[in-house]
Amino acid sequence: MAAYRAQPAFCRGVHTLAVSADLFKLNRNRLCESLKDKVPKGALVLLQGGESETRHSSDHEPIFRQESYFHWTFGVEEPDFFGAIDVDTQKCVLFPPKLPESYAVWMGKLLGLEDFKVRYGVDEAQWACDIAEVLKTKAPSVILTLRGMDTDSSKYTREAAFDGISEFKVDNTALHPQIMECRVFKTDEELEVLRYSNRLSSEAHKEVYTMLYIYIITMLIFRHYCYFNGGMRHQAYTCICGTGDNGSVLHYGHAGAPNSKQVSNGDMCLFDMGSEYCCYSSDITCSFPANGKFSEKQRNIYEAVLKSSRAVMDAVKPGVSWVDMHLLADRTHLEELKRKGLVKGDVDEMMKVRLGAVFMPHGLGHFMGIDTHDVGGYPEGTERIDQPGLRSLRTVRTLDHRMVITVEPGIYFIDILIDAALNNPEQAKFLVREEIDQYRGFGGVRIEDDITVTEDGMECLTCVPRTVEEIEAIMEEGRNRPQVPLPQEMEKLSMVQRILLKNMKVVDCIQDVFSCTTEHINRNVISHADFPLKDSSRQKHLLGRYTTFVIGNFQQEQRSQMQLLEESTLVRNFPLDFSVKLSRIYLRGMFLLNK
Amino acid sequence: MAAYRAQPAFCRGVHTLAVSADLFKLNRNRLCESLKDKVPKGALVLLQGGESETRHSSDHEPIFRQESYFHWTFGVEEPDFFGAIDVDTQKCVLFPPKLPESYAVWMGKLLGLEDFKVRYGVDEAQWACDIAEVLKTKAPSVILTLRGMDTDSSKYTREAAFDGISEFKVDNTALHPQIMECRVFKTDEELEVLRYSNRLSSEAHKEVYTMLYIYIITMLIFRHYCYFNGGMRHQAYTCICGTGDNGSVLHYGHAGAPNSKQVSNGDMCLFDMGSEYCCYSSDITCSFPANGKFSEKQRNIYEAVLKSSRAVMDAVKPGVSWVDMHLLADRTHLEELKRKGLVKGDVDEMMKVRLGAVFMPHGLGHFMGIDTHDVGGYPEGTERIDQPGLRSLRTVRTLDHRMVITVEPGIYFIDILIDAALNNPEQAKFLVREEIDQYRGFGGVRIEDDITVTEDGMECLTCVPRTVEEIEAIMEEGRNRPQVPLPQEMEKLSMVQRILLKNMKVVDCIQDVFSCTTEHINRNVISHADFPLKDSSRQKHLLGRYTTFVIGNFQQEQRSQMQLLEESTLVRNFPLDFSVKLSRIYLRGMFLLNK
Repeated sequence: MAAYRAQPAFCRGVHTLAVSADLFKLNRNRLCESLKDKVPKGALVLLQGGESETRHSSDHEPIFRQESYFHWTFGVEEPDFFGAIDVDTQKCVLFPPKLPESYAVWMGKLLGLEDFKVRYGVDEAQWACDIAEVLKTKAPSVILTLRGMDTDSSKYTREAAFDGISEFKVDNTALHPQIMECRVFKTDEELEVLRYSNRLSSEAHKEVYTMLYIYIITMLIFRHYCYFNGGMRHQAYTCICGTGDNGSVLHYGHAGAPNSKQVSNGDMCLFDMGSEYCCYSSDITCSFPANGKFSEKQRNIYEAVLKSSRAVMDAVKPGVSWVDMHLLADRTHLEELKRKGLVKGDVDEMMKVRLGAVFMPHGLGHFMGIDTHDVGGYPEGTERIDQPGLRSLRTVRTLDHRMVITVEPGIYFIDILIDAALNNPEQAKFLVREEIDQYRGFGGVRIEDDITVTEDGMECLTCVPRTVEEIEAIMEEGRNRPQVPLPQEMEKLSMVQRILLKNMKVVDCIQDVFSCTTEHINRNVISHADFPLKDSSRQKHLLGRYTTFVIGNFQQEQRSQMQLLEESTLVRNFPLDFSVKLSRIYLRGMFLLNK
Repeated sequence: MAAYRAQPAFCRGVHTLAVSADLFKLNRNRLCESLKDKVPKGALVLLQGGESETRHSSDHEPIFRQESYFHWTFGVEEPDFFGAIDVDTQKCVLFPPKLPESYAVWMGKLLGLEDFKVRYGVDEAQWACDIAEVLKTKAPSVILTLRGMDTDSSKYTREAAFDGISEFKVDNTALHPQIMECRVFKTDEELEVLRYSNRLSSEAHKEVYTMLYIYIITMLIFRHYCYFNGGMRHQAYTCICGTGDNGSVLHYGHAGAPNSKQVSNGDMCLFDMGSEYCCYSSDITCSFPANGKFSEKQRNIYEAVLKSSRAVMDAVKPGVSWVDMHLLADRTHLEELKRKGLVKGDVDEMMKVRLGAVFMPHGLGHFMGIDTHDVGGYPEGTERIDQPGLRSLRTVRTLDHRMVITVEPGIYFIDILIDAALNNPEQAKFLVREEIDQYRGFGGVRIEDDITVTEDGMECLTCVPRTVEEIEAIMEEGRNRPQVPLPQEMEKLSMVQRILLKNMKVVDCIQDVFSCTTEHINRNVISHADFPLKDSSRQKHLLGRYTTFVIGNFQQEQRSQMQLLEESTLVRNFPLDFSVKLSRIYLRGMFLLNK
């Protein structure tokens, strides 16, 4: 059925990473190792995968995404499976759903048990409808089902259930802490997939740097890049594309504010976007000025955050407390804000009143893996710290080798938090109100990288431009690069093509390059209203000529639409930008002739 | 919060359609009109919108899509709303969820009741937590809730429920048949949105015609085009991109077969793809040969299906039975298959044994609107016809003005259906086995358009190339058009760019066009392994030279990858194609220089 599955591996095209089914086998074996001293001989792990669903009362089927524990254990891409593992022997059975033969008309040739066994590289496959009977023959001493709370959502996992399970002895307490703990530590095989997700998402962020349109289009450039180039069908989470004041809206992009604001010149952008591959996430935030040049204020805040990001990365290694890392970021922010004159007084005193949380109300970072907010942040015996900022930490653990965690310090100017601090005498005395007021409406800066803790430090999985210089350089490159036209430009594009095609002087030059015949050209000449050139002087280079002309024409005919375009694509502040855009249109004209 | 919402309208950017909130007001008024003689004075309609959800036990929030009845009635884009309408006065109240003030940090400035009233153009807004109290002050004689079965999914709608509803008189039977019936007939305002969805999805299909890659990429080109150009965030349904034998898999694209097969030369493609805008769907299928030229067999089947599509469209008008249209399609298919020698005997006799369903096992079409498979297909008093093919019809109604329905005849060669027919003496006598055997593995052809029934006929909302000549022409155009490089090609692309940049003869020519300075060029020259040209003869035009060179280079170094590329992008059968591709690469080289 699916191509690229001749061998048991997850793959999305010849250009994408092949993830071997062995990755999941190793996960199962690790789980069994961790369980074997804690459960009776003859215990059997039983998991139930995600089910096929339809939206509300309709028959619309959303694209299926596997439940994360089931994916970690079996790597199954399809809904309605069960899976069992014998803890002693580490052998496993998959139970795919048995579909009626008539479904072949709708679903394609139905796979048999042997096919599933091969597809997912498991020891045995049996139909889900036979599960009670099959498990009876295995005579497990106890069935271990998964019940446990996710500490980010406060929701419980769904225990496996089937008709006849009451005839077995079931334990729903032993499995969850062990499998959760296994998921916290990533194998080399998992790290390879996470590196891939991160690399592709990093590249996609770089693409966005060079193609800054209105938000909604930014977001889909990212999504398209990841799918087209990396075979990443799912986003790890809904993109957060805030600019200007929205940069301080930590979860901008939700249904009520679907990333549809237009970028304005002078805005700071905060783009938090990541895709997943084979259900392994990436979670990356880039912050940068919309117009490609940091203002003094933007640089002040950006460099403060970068400093805390780098301070944390320098300190990360096994044995370090994540809470300490959060506090280190807070301290760095406060020191930097003090240097810039936004806060005053003793930083140690500021730390005591949690002033850092006014500027960074969220936690410094979270585990990442098959879930973007991955499990295991609060195992038994750990507690949330009920203090501003710290209470938002998704983990308070001590770092260890093979953990994957995001490092995402940020400084935001959020009116309700600033106002509350100004009204709190303990905090207000440190704030330089007149300076802070200058930053209201600024939005925020977050710098988010995904790292894995190594034996003696860390490895950064994310690779995007980070220094002010790097960002300004990539954006400069982007402005000079031909871009995909905005939908609004399409009309103009075809008009310009027609103009080009009517001007044989240009065509001569194109012919020179491509050896087009006159016949080819004539085929494309559309008899259309005449567009006289405003300036045909040979002294100007060809591109310049068309720039002049087209601007002239737009000014006469489409002034208001043109202004809109200028707003949305930041043409205004970049005189060069528009000629670059036209050069693209110009080249498009040549493309047309290339027959 | 969301931009483009200064006035109550749904919009996704300046280039996209603005859908006025009046569309939903008109829907509400029509609903009240249809209810007023059937319910007591003082009745109040109460609907509950879709709820915010997280995936399994995690805190991952999928992108919200409104429940269809709620969307039809209120046009609300956000989760967790209630809405009520006074049937007598036609006035309505929206009940948004009241979020804790602290959510402003995560969600942005929280909207007040007045904001919601303006945003959705309603008469009143009250917090959802106050619903019991507010409704008490309205003292409705009865609350009408929505309970009814969707005849496509066999699932029931979810009735509105809130703490305290038991203190009201509730009727859950009167509303569903009326609102369902209202949804069957589209207003001018709704038709405008459906036309928009269809136009954009049609354009996206045309884009795919000209950019045929491996499936998975085809599908995402479609999706990207719709979002980028049309602001369509959601697909109306999961793309079905079948080629070759998979063209006969009616719901190909599901999780077990995620559209990841590679296109092979000679394949017939069947691409069923549609996006939605403001929750209004499009549902379009194009079938065409992967290599751009219909073979005789492909033309035989394609033209048979096109004939039945056009026969149905010619016959559609108010008063016509949809069952008769299905039978007309069947008859046309059988007549055409007889002309081509695949079946023999009397067509009337074939119709009696439902031979048509062997080739078209699905229904001819379905209502379409806010749901792709829209509601109202089987109102009370109608019954499914339990015969092959006909039992798959999603409606058996008589057509009427303002219905929107898909016309999607198809002919497929599905082994299990052909084998069953050959084993059924009543059907087997009509089948010319040796001819039909020639078509095994062919896949299928479906031609799907969306139409609306007008006062005296129909309007086709879909606009894609349909005749063999039109399809061959657009694909010819596409082959000559520069395409986005496949991810696999990226490596080569940058290599070719480097080659170009090292050859000053070419650079001279580029300089001629773009007035680049040597400095610009030098900045891009990467000192890299030397790539000597295989053929530098000036007699060949420049493009030809590089074609030769690059092919030469690939043959030595990347033969196997090259062969893979040839398979996947159909280079093999189009000697021109590859040079076109290189011309694009070549132009890309020029792009790089355009600083």
